[in-house]
Amino acid sequence: MPAPGRFITFEGIDGSGKSTQAHALSEALRAEGRDVLLTREPGGSEGAEEIRRLLVQGDAARWSAETEILLFTAARRDHLEKTIEPALIAGRTVISDRFADSTRIYQGAARADLRGVVDQLHDTMIGTEPHLTLIIDVEPAVALARGLARNSGEDRFEDLGLAFQTRLATGFRALAREYPDRCHLIDGNRSVHAIQAEIRTLVRGALA
Amino acid sequence: MPAPGRFITFEGIDGSGKSTQAHALSEALRAEGRDVLLTREPGGSEGAEEIRRLLVQGDAARWSAETEILLFTAARRDHLEKTIEPALIAGRTVISDRFADSTRIYQGAARADLRGVVDQLHDTMIGTEPHLTLIIDVEPAVALARGLARNSGEDRFEDLGLAFQTRLATGFRALAREYPDRCHLIDGNRSVHAIQAEIRTLVRGALA
Repeated sequence: MPAPGRFITFEGIDGSGKSTQAHALSEALRAEGRDVLLTREPGGSEGAEEIRRLLVQGDAARWSAETEILLFTAARRDHLEKTIEPALIAGRTVISDRFADSTRIYQGAARADLRGVVDQLHDTMIGTEPHLTLIIDVEPAVALARGLARNSGEDRFEDLGLAFQTRLATGFRALAREYPDRCHLIDGNRSVHAIQAEIRTLVRGALA
Repeated sequence: MPAPGRFITFEGIDGSGKSTQAHALSEALRAEGRDVLLTREPGGSEGAEEIRRLLVQGDAARWSAETEILLFTAARRDHLEKTIEPALIAGRTVISDRFADSTRIYQGAARADLRGVVDQLHDTMIGTEPHLTLIIDVEPAVALARGLARNSGEDRFEDLGLAFQTRLATGFRALAREYPDRCHLIDGNRSVHAIQAEIRTLVRGALA
């Protein structure tokens, strides 16, 4: 029997505004009386947050793409077991800022040609797909400027520059075409409120 | 072109004496003028040692068997890339205290019925097998008493008791039958010197 809850993910490059939109959506759904769990990757459970620290600290060449895929999948498995699945079984609406699509694009396509490896690990160890994925699509130059301005010190990939951000954005657009039923590409080059309104309409349809 | 070095692993339950034997063998080979790298799992490279800390600290139920398999495989991939492969390419003899067989038995057979998952991850992400594997086989009750006496605080599996140690020992014996060319089962219920002499004879043959 499938879990009664709904699972919505936000994807996009750093600086796309997806975290702002994930937060706004969770507040809007709570205001309607829904029981919402807002979570994020990498992280989202006690163990996954510890794995996250290994992934986001230190320089970008610290792990090979293959080791990164294994660590991201380990963190995702823990996040799924400890946080996402229990919430879905309890009938809650789960909103995650990043999930498996990020690994498909960051490690599977843009950093190395390992999409087949990413997909094999996902099928064996994760399996779960969201009911709805909102991909916020923005100009890489704009996103990069926003991300650098934020200066969180955790987004190692921002150091890799505009060419890399452009490969990521192209990868996310291709993903939206690959999974047309699940993924919706949202034009993020608009006001926060205009984007929010489009997302509310899409989510209303998905939760109906 | 295969790397010119030789790769020897020691396997067995905690308290089997395998670490003592790995150290003795590396000293004996060094005395003969061989360039030996003695390493261990989990760990053996800077990144893998950090993953090791996530695996060995905290209580035994902290990670599911599936998440453990992913973390052990991530640590092994880093260990292989950063430590083992460069040494084998340089023609060194690499001796590792534990390698992939430990995951086959601890997570794949004795803790959960996940041997198929372990093998799939190994084939996709690791691939490398040792030239020679020495499995030290001792009475689980004896090994357990030795391990508890050592009280390292890191061997979480010792808490799981004699029934679990017996499942592990049975698993390692089955592994020796499964890979008869690579694996040698060594009777560890003898003096350290008698075991050492048998290992030296086996290794002399493998390095010839």
